[in-house]
Amino acid sequence: MPPSPIRKLVPYAEQAKKAGIKVYHLNIGQPDIETPEIMLKAIHEFPDKIVAYSHSAGMESYRRKLCTYYHKHNIELDFKQIMVTTGGSEAIEIAMMTCMNEGDEIIIPEPFYANYNGFAIQAGLTVKPIISTIETGFALPPISEFEKIITSKTRAIMICNPGNPTGYLYTKEELELLSQLVLKYDLWLFADEVYREFCYDGRKHFSVMNLPGLEKNVILLDSVSKRYSACGARIGAMISKNEEVMDYALRFGQARLSPPTFGQVAAEAAIDTPAKYFENVKAEYTSRRDFLVDALNKMDGVFCPKPSGAFYCIAQLPIDDSDKFCQWLLEKFSYENQTVMLAPATGFYSHPEPGKKQVRIAYVLKQEDLRKAMICLEQALKAYPGYISDVKKQAIEI
Amino acid sequence: MPPSPIRKLVPYAEQAKKAGIKVYHLNIGQPDIETPEIMLKAIHEFPDKIVAYSHSAGMESYRRKLCTYYHKHNIELDFKQIMVTTGGSEAIEIAMMTCMNEGDEIIIPEPFYANYNGFAIQAGLTVKPIISTIETGFALPPISEFEKIITSKTRAIMICNPGNPTGYLYTKEELELLSQLVLKYDLWLFADEVYREFCYDGRKHFSVMNLPGLEKNVILLDSVSKRYSACGARIGAMISKNEEVMDYALRFGQARLSPPTFGQVAAEAAIDTPAKYFENVKAEYTSRRDFLVDALNKMDGVFCPKPSGAFYCIAQLPIDDSDKFCQWLLEKFSYENQTVMLAPATGFYSHPEPGKKQVRIAYVLKQEDLRKAMICLEQALKAYPGYISDVKKQAIEI
Repeated sequence: MPPSPIRKLVPYAEQAKKAGIKVYHLNIGQPDIETPEIMLKAIHEFPDKIVAYSHSAGMESYRRKLCTYYHKHNIELDFKQIMVTTGGSEAIEIAMMTCMNEGDEIIIPEPFYANYNGFAIQAGLTVKPIISTIETGFALPPISEFEKIITSKTRAIMICNPGNPTGYLYTKEELELLSQLVLKYDLWLFADEVYREFCYDGRKHFSVMNLPGLEKNVILLDSVSKRYSACGARIGAMISKNEEVMDYALRFGQARLSPPTFGQVAAEAAIDTPAKYFENVKAEYTSRRDFLVDALNKMDGVFCPKPSGAFYCIAQLPIDDSDKFCQWLLEKFSYENQTVMLAPATGFYSHPEPGKKQVRIAYVLKQEDLRKAMICLEQALKAYPGYISDVKKQAIEI
Repeated sequence: MPPSPIRKLVPYAEQAKKAGIKVYHLNIGQPDIETPEIMLKAIHEFPDKIVAYSHSAGMESYRRKLCTYYHKHNIELDFKQIMVTTGGSEAIEIAMMTCMNEGDEIIIPEPFYANYNGFAIQAGLTVKPIISTIETGFALPPISEFEKIITSKTRAIMICNPGNPTGYLYTKEELELLSQLVLKYDLWLFADEVYREFCYDGRKHFSVMNLPGLEKNVILLDSVSKRYSACGARIGAMISKNEEVMDYALRFGQARLSPPTFGQVAAEAAIDTPAKYFENVKAEYTSRRDFLVDALNKMDGVFCPKPSGAFYCIAQLPIDDSDKFCQWLLEKFSYENQTVMLAPATGFYSHPEPGKKQVRIAYVLKQEDLRKAMICLEQALKAYPGYISDVKKQAIEI
C-alpha cells in the first residue's frame, strides 16, 4: 500500500510549525464544528459499571433508533438491515470483503476518496476508475464510459454522494441512469452517503436506498463522523436490504467482536440532535463555501466549480505540479508568518496526472481563518517558481 | 469465512431464555468484573467539545503513558514502537497484513483462539496448526514438530500467552526454544499477550519482547479488553521494535483513520489503576479456577488440566460430540430450570476432530453461579444420550 500524497506532507507541516509558522489546515476532513451537546452528555452519563462488548452488529437499541433517523430521511429500514461498524472505514472494508473476491473489479468515478483504494487493495480488488472532469463540476461520467470498462470481472460500482473530494451532489436522474446499468450487468452498487446532511442551495439528497428494484444490489455505507462532527467516535454502518449480504457481513463483524461501546452510546443519543443544529451547520458551511469558491475564482488562473454538497472543493491552480506546490507551501513559503496546507489532488486519482494541477480544499475552518488562508494562497501563487500562467480560467457554476 | 461453532449455538440459547430457562454463560470471554472506576471517571469527564480523530497510531499522550505501563512489566518501549488499534482484533489483522503476503503460511499451536483463523483468511494466509495436547496441559509442542511443517512459505509463528482457550502459560524456557527456531528460519513471532495480568500461583509472565536478539522479529499484540474488563472500549495495540514494520503498519492505520477517541481517553486513565484492583481480580479468578477445575475433575469421566493463566480452561468430557452436546444443553436440557452454555472446542482446532470431546469453559462468572453451573453440567452428563463412559480419566497438574 503506497503512502498518500497528503501523508508525505506531514513532516513538512511539522517543520513549518516548529519554525513558528501558523499553518491553516485545509487538507483534512476534521471539522471545527462542535459535537452536539446531547452526544457528549450521553458519554458524561455513561451508566454501566462494565464496559462490555456489544452485539457484533451493534447495540440493538442503537440500531432500532437508527431506523428512526433513516425514516426522517425517507429511508425505510428494519434494524436487522443495519450493521454498526467502527467508522465508515470498516463499513467499506467489510462490504468489499463480503460482496467480492480476490481479483474482482470495482468501478469508481475519480477523483475519489483515497482510502477507497487502500480498502480495495486489502480486499484483493482492482479499482477501475472513470474520470469525471472539473469542467462538469465532477458530474457522473456518461454511462457509455462505464460500459466501455465493464468486464467479466466487474462486480461493483462505488460512488460517494455528496462527494469527497469533489463536493458534487448526484441528481436523482444520474442515480437512475446508474441504477439501470447496475441492473443490466447485475452489479453491486456501493454508496458512501456520509455527507447526506451537507447539501446546499435548497438541493435535496436522493439516497440509493430509494432506487426501485435495486434492493438486492445496494450497499449503503454510512458514518456519524461528519454528521455530528464526531470523527473520533468511530461509528459507522453498513446497510443493505439483501439479507444474505447482511448475514455474511456479520461473520466479519463477529471476527472483530464488536464496534466501540462508548461511541455507540454517544451515537444513539445523537439521533435526538435538534434540527436547529443542522440548520446552523448548513448555514455555516454554505457561507464558508460561498466565500471560498468566490475567493478562489477571483485569483488569476484559478478555477473552482461551486460544489453543492459535503465540505470540500477541488480547485485547478496555475501550477506545474500540485505535490511540489503543496510541499513548497510548507517548506519554503510563508506570508506574514502564515501558510496553508492543501491536499494535492494527485492522491484522489488512480494515476497522478489528472490531479497535477488540482488541489482539494476542505472548508472546515471558520471564515476568518479561511480568509487568511486565501490571502496566503494568493500570495503563494505569485511567488511560486512553478507558476504557469497559461491555465485557462473558466467559470462554471453547477 | 465459516460461522464458528459457538455462534451456531446462539439461537438455541435465545430459545432457552424465551422458555424461561436461566442460562449460565461460560462460553464467552466477557468478564463480570467491574471496569476500574478511574477509567469510567475519565469518560464521565471527557473534556473536549469536538470528538476529533486522534493520530492514526493513537494519541501521543496515551502511547507515552503506555510506555510507563510496559516499563512496570519490564518491557522497555519508545512510544513510536506502539500503534494503538481498535481492539486486539485490529492489531492482529494489521500485523498479518503488514508482515505477510497472500499465500504465506503462519504456524499456530492449536487449540487456538478461533478468530485468528478469520483474520488469517482475510489476509490471504494459510494457518498451519500444530497440536498441543490436553495430556500436557497444552504445553508448547516439541520444536521438532514445528520444524516438520516449516516450508518455504512459512513466515510466522503465532502464540497466545497465557493462552485462550487453554489457559496455558508458556515458560521462559519454552519461549527461548521458540526464539531459536524463529531466528534459525528468520520468521516473525506474533505474540498475543492480552492476558498478561492473569497469571496465578505466583508464576510470572515472560514477554516475547524480552527475548534477546529477536527485536526485529517480534510483534506484540495487546488489548485493554481483559486487563481492565473493558472489552467494549475496543482499544488494543500492535507493538514492535522493528521500525520498518511500524512504518508500514501505520499505512493500514491511516487507511482507517484512527482508533476510537473515547476508548483511548479511558485507556490512558486506566494506566493509573491501583495495584489493589489487579490483586483483587487475580484472587477472584484464582478461587474461581480452583473451584471450577476441582468440580470438573470430580465428575465421572471428566478431565480438566489446571491452567496457570487467563480465565479459560479446556475440559475433556465423556461425550460423543461437543457440538451436539452444547446444543443439547440449550435445546433439550434443563435442571431446576437452569442450564449452561459452553463453547465446543471444535472451533478452536483447524479440524474439528481433536475438539469433539472437549469444551472451553470461561470462568467469568461469580463463584455462586459457577457452582450452580457445575451442578447443571454434572446432571446434564448423566442425562445426555451421547454419554460415553470409557473416556479415561487422568489427573494432571501443570
